[in-house]
Amino acid sequence: MTALYDVAAIGNAIVDVIAPATDEFIVAEGLDKGAMTLIDQARGESLYGRMAPGMETSGGSAGNTVAGVASFGGRAAYLGKVADDQLGRVFIHDTRAIGVSYDVPPLAGGPASGRCLINVTPDGQRTMCTFLGASTELTPDDVKPEVVEGAAIVYLEGYLFDPNEARRAFAKAAGLARAAGRMIAITLSDAFVVERHREALMDFIETQVDLVFANEAEITSLFRTSDFDAAITAMRERVQVAAVTRSEKGSVVLAGDQTHLIAAAPVEKVVDTTGAGDQYAAGFLFGLASGRALPICGGLGSLAAAEVISHYGPRPQVSLKALAAEKGL
Amino acid sequence: MTALYDVAAIGNAIVDVIAPATDEFIVAEGLDKGAMTLIDQARGESLYGRMAPGMETSGGSAGNTVAGVASFGGRAAYLGKVADDQLGRVFIHDTRAIGVSYDVPPLAGGPASGRCLINVTPDGQRTMCTFLGASTELTPDDVKPEVVEGAAIVYLEGYLFDPNEARRAFAKAAGLARAAGRMIAITLSDAFVVERHREALMDFIETQVDLVFANEAEITSLFRTSDFDAAITAMRERVQVAAVTRSEKGSVVLAGDQTHLIAAAPVEKVVDTTGAGDQYAAGFLFGLASGRALPICGGLGSLAAAEVISHYGPRPQVSLKALAAEKGL
Repeated sequence: MTALYDVAAIGNAIVDVIAPATDEFIVAEGLDKGAMTLIDQARGESLYGRMAPGMETSGGSAGNTVAGVASFGGRAAYLGKVADDQLGRVFIHDTRAIGVSYDVPPLAGGPASGRCLINVTPDGQRTMCTFLGASTELTPDDVKPEVVEGAAIVYLEGYLFDPNEARRAFAKAAGLARAAGRMIAITLSDAFVVERHREALMDFIETQVDLVFANEAEITSLFRTSDFDAAITAMRERVQVAAVTRSEKGSVVLAGDQTHLIAAAPVEKVVDTTGAGDQYAAGFLFGLASGRALPICGGLGSLAAAEVISHYGPRPQVSLKALAAEKGL
Repeated sequence: MTALYDVAAIGNAIVDVIAPATDEFIVAEGLDKGAMTLIDQARGESLYGRMAPGMETSGGSAGNTVAGVASFGGRAAYLGKVADDQLGRVFIHDTRAIGVSYDVPPLAGGPASGRCLINVTPDGQRTMCTFLGASTELTPDDVKPEVVEGAAIVYLEGYLFDPNEARRAFAKAAGLARAAGRMIAITLSDAFVVERHREALMDFIETQVDLVFANEAEITSLFRTSDFDAAITAMRERVQVAAVTRSEKGSVVLAGDQTHLIAAAPVEKVVDTTGAGDQYAAGFLFGLASGRALPICGGLGSLAAAEVISHYGPRPQVSLKALAAEKGL
């Protein structure tokens, strides 16, 4: 069947609240620098009360990725749950306005839209505290077969292993994609997510996944090793393709016995690393869905990641399609 | 009486929704490029539906100015009305987090928090459409005498001439400030605001105001002339001090028979002019309240304006105090 979409993604629908912070603030608040920590509403309100003035933008890992795919000119669809509130309407608007198909009805009468409090230190590193809110209420009913079966690649975020109901939606999507012969991709999302759900993630990867995105901390956590090469070798045996990002060192793309080393794209100043991995995945998935060779897919990922870390916010601020054309990719 | 605050400001409390736009979009939507147009909720929803993905930040002209004053290290207070909703809470947070004293109770059960849809064209120019929402519900009761009487300078935005109830609050503030012997400053805000309220504004300036901020379009509109020098001369006769901004040409500060030409501060790339006038006023007011000479006040205004137009959003993203120290101001 011809694909309606290049990529359909499922994730926690989240609005980001981004503010600059000092390293002292991260320590004083007891936050894990660079990580994503789940918080409840009360903790969210208390932390927000001490944060600097911020800006609000649509986020959510998989949501950022499909926004990037659409910015490259790809056809993308999104499945995730916001509440019927002001921030939820912002999320719906931003996602549709960039060209992503997004029709999951917002939640009425439950928790507020999920949000992520992001403190960005002067080195550009982002430290995230997430109140999942309505995003946990994504149900299997929200996973429409025509969306999942109509996508060349179905992309799932590891963050979805946290909320139980969303995880059932995730499983349904994977089952539908598998049955329709679609490619299944996953991102490990965060080293602490891997800690919390290592066995389930490993089982899912071994039985269902074709393509894994991970960074160094996540892949070494998955295989309980501090040896990057050992983790690479273990991953190579388990999936068709893996793309492992290494910040300024670029990425490593594995496929069978092939290994492609991909350079990072140059960035004048790293302002905010929020969305770097998400946009790398966007470039890679767009490249793959449009039939590019793996090194080009990696190059598109590097390009998109470089764009997003040069400004505040996790989604592209320029047309990635135009940027790729400019770079001859 | 020693002042508790350097500046107390009254304005329409507004959350900005900022998105990039093409010039074709501005034309197709029938918008006045560079101006502020009042819209109702229905028009707001329809326009928003066609805008690009955006970011949300606290705004409102006078709110931006006191945020700038606080960023310079000044003591500032704000009077303006948001609703008790998500965007209202964002506004309250951002205003307090930068150090501004802000205690007006949010509106319950009325319209939503006001917002301004800002389309930014590639030249950095911002075109604004404002749904005033709850901001029109600022009442005279919200104007606490201890705030107004406790400020060295009371700063009022011309935008407040639009909503009737807020205008009564404005008049109360001016009366209290006058009685307490405080300096009264006003910004003309927008050429169309001047069109709509020319007589009332002129009367207010002649009877109550010590310091006027205006740009070229506003001051020439006020005096119904196309001759900038004629407008300058007319203004000089009416107020103690006037600061007239001229974009990249800097500003002209008038005081009696003195004229100070102030250069614009250099900017690498103009990203978004939203807040330029507001931050100019912030620097100027902070300088004046802290006893600087007028050319230094203008220089602080230029510095703050240059910072804010170099990024999206109407409030400073770095410490203006540190920036001023770096520049030896």
